[in-house]
Amino acid sequence: SKGGKILILPGDHVGPEVVTEALKVLDIIEKHTGARFERDFDLCGGCSLDKHKDSVTEAVLKKCEDIDAVFFGSAGGPEWGTSQPNPESGLLRIRARMQIFANMRPCKFASKSMVSRSPIKEEIIRGVDFMLIRENCGGAYYGKKIEEEDYGCDPWEYRRSEIERVVRVAGALAMQHDPHLPVWSADKANVLASSRVWRRITHEVFEKEFPKVTLKDQLADSLAMLLITKPTAFNGVIVTDNTFGDILSDEAGGLTGSLGLLPSASLAGPPASPGQKPTLGANNAGGVRGLYEPVHGSAPDISGKGLANPVAQVLSLAMMLRYSFNMHDEAEAVANVLDSKAEGGLEVRTGDLGGQADTREMSEAIQGEVGRLLM
Amino acid sequence: SKGGKILILPGDHVGPEVVTEALKVLDIIEKHTGARFERDFDLCGGCSLDKHKDSVTEAVLKKCEDIDAVFFGSAGGPEWGTSQPNPESGLLRIRARMQIFANMRPCKFASKSMVSRSPIKEEIIRGVDFMLIRENCGGAYYGKKIEEEDYGCDPWEYRRSEIERVVRVAGALAMQHDPHLPVWSADKANVLASSRVWRRITHEVFEKEFPKVTLKDQLADSLAMLLITKPTAFNGVIVTDNTFGDILSDEAGGLTGSLGLLPSASLAGPPASPGQKPTLGANNAGGVRGLYEPVHGSAPDISGKGLANPVAQVLSLAMMLRYSFNMHDEAEAVANVLDSKAEGGLEVRTGDLGGQADTREMSEAIQGEVGRLLM
Ligand SMILES: CC(C)[C@H](C(=O)O)[C@@H](O)C(=O)O
Ligand SMILES: CC(C)[C@H](C(=O)O)[C@@H](O)C(=O)O
Repeated sequence: SKGGKILILPGDHVGPEVVTEALKVLDIIEKHTGARFERDFDLCGGCSLDKHKDSVTEAVLKKCEDIDAVFFGSAGGPEWGTSQPNPESGLLRIRARMQIFANMRPCKFASKSMVSRSPIKEEIIRGVDFMLIRENCGGAYYGKKIEEEDYGCDPWEYRRSEIERVVRVAGALAMQHDPHLPVWSADKANVLASSRVWRRITHEVFEKEFPKVTLKDQLADSLAMLLITKPTAFNGVIVTDNTFGDILSDEAGGLTGSLGLLPSASLAGPPASPGQKPTLGANNAGGVRGLYEPVHGSAPDISGKGLANPVAQVLSLAMMLRYSFNMHDEAEAVANVLDSKAEGGLEVRTGDLGGQADTREMSEAIQGEVGRLLM
Repeated sequence: SKGGKILILPGDHVGPEVVTEALKVLDIIEKHTGARFERDFDLCGGCSLDKHKDSVTEAVLKKCEDIDAVFFGSAGGPEWGTSQPNPESGLLRIRARMQIFANMRPCKFASKSMVSRSPIKEEIIRGVDFMLIRENCGGAYYGKKIEEEDYGCDPWEYRRSEIERVVRVAGALAMQHDPHLPVWSADKANVLASSRVWRRITHEVFEKEFPKVTLKDQLADSLAMLLITKPTAFNGVIVTDNTFGDILSDEAGGLTGSLGLLPSASLAGPPASPGQKPTLGANNAGGVRGLYEPVHGSAPDISGKGLANPVAQVLSLAMMLRYSFNMHDEAEAVANVLDSKAEGGLEVRTGDLGGQADTREMSEAIQGEVGRLLM
């Protein structure tokens, strides 16, 4: 039987608003497929700080350990500006606890009609379609920190096992999609020791395990430039470390120009091909353990007004269906919802996309369309 | 008497080609102003590896210590792909030896006619004008590295003094130009200890020393997105650490879309206002010690063909005249050369700008125009 157990952490500000709407899409999926999703709701971020004086509690972290997937909204806001710990630390601790080491951010247009909304000229950005995989549990963001009055240090370190497991995700993804598309590995091997180790081990893994995939090295700084001037040259897969991935994935988000449309997944192992079993990070639902969240933050400026665009959260749901629950057809239906209507795609648009719809109207249009697609 | 001593390190591939042309512009300046520049030529990069088996020799590093300015071309190329040390390491060692801790990269159009060459839509990028200051001698790129078979580590560390001196350059620059423009400091204080120390000390410095300048914090990842979607919102000064600065400055380079037009300066102290003496890093010429180089690399694909665009090297010369030799009028003349002709600016264009001119033709047009401007 399809489905499984999900932990829902709506978080702060617009988080709960868009999560509520995305879950209605999940209701539609249940109705049309017979799948069942057991839903547990809990706190992470500012809301958890308010109630428990911590950005996430041990109880929630425990839940994260044996859940099939976590469905996350967004955490933070100005009211916790000086809190110790900060609201965002909850998410960092969940990533570490779940060992969801592969943060995947697709860079493509949710709909053809969105291309014109990019800050980049249409002839340059049209057809962009890559997956950026960021190492998510190591490097400078997780080393043992030193924070003193006059000195701060974050060791930027990588071990072989941490590198191997994340670059394998890149290799597996390339094999599943199109082994002819190269995988780019971005680093600063001309300066950083950790990058040199990263580069050497990445090549070892690809030579041994993915001999058919072309692996190309790209210096992270020059990639930051090329993503703007030649974005489609990187169609395929990009894999990089936690720090470079943090910056480059937000840059990639800027390329499409619609923050309200960008989903992400953080996985505990390589995604399984349809019909296959995961090799690492498997959950009880036959997929990979993962956390799914929109790229956008909690948007305090528009929260409470029903104006937030639910699409990024809905597309994160599509990633969850695909990677954690192996529901590939349903994932496709949800992922293509904006483009699916015979006549040029869904016409309902929230304000950030130049339309008039509120969160619920946009969501209802999506629900209707997903229902139609699954008939 | 104006002028001073410069060490010229043309480097590899197109480096010598564009440096030669830029020095002809310096000849014109000498001729029109009576300034004298003593020129010493030496090796750094692949050419030094070939001759001395090292990317830079101790003799050259010694020269760098008591020179007024270093005029650098570009280092590296595929023929030194696996060299130990790599050609780029020469530049890193010069930066450390000269303690040129403030790497300054202007992000603006060298000429109004260039706006349409940006990959970004004209209505979004028009009017962009910020200076990105990257800390250039510390952080993860300079910590004591560990490089083993299965493990690599680069300590990402900052001391108070390293932070103070570079953010002071940002404050001084804002005061000199327009104290109403904010200074943005980019960090990841929500994750990194070194960023939290950076942010605290930066605020201390601005409160005490630049109370009139508005200092704004901006998370480095979100800045990477906003630079694409709202670049002009950052007009003014951006200051950030070595790693973030490396990535963000190349990204900023992509915004204007013309790698052949981007200069940079690396300074040993805050630039002095016209008529004032430098407070740190002063040279014998009344300016600040610095190294000047184009942002572009050695471009092995077009080297030896006379096709390279000399403008970035020429604009680096303008920065040298301004910061190291206090020749502000001459710096202005050179910096505005592309825009200065009564009718829509210089019309000669190299291939990268869609024109037909070769390196020398472009250079000759510039020399002529600079001569005219200095009459
Ligand atoms: C909120 C923050 C800790 C987080 C990170 O830096 O990893 C965020 O920027 C992200 O990219 O998911
Ligand atoms: C060549 C390399 C060492 C250098 C750096 O990373 O600092 C370069 O990328 C730069 O930005 O000047």
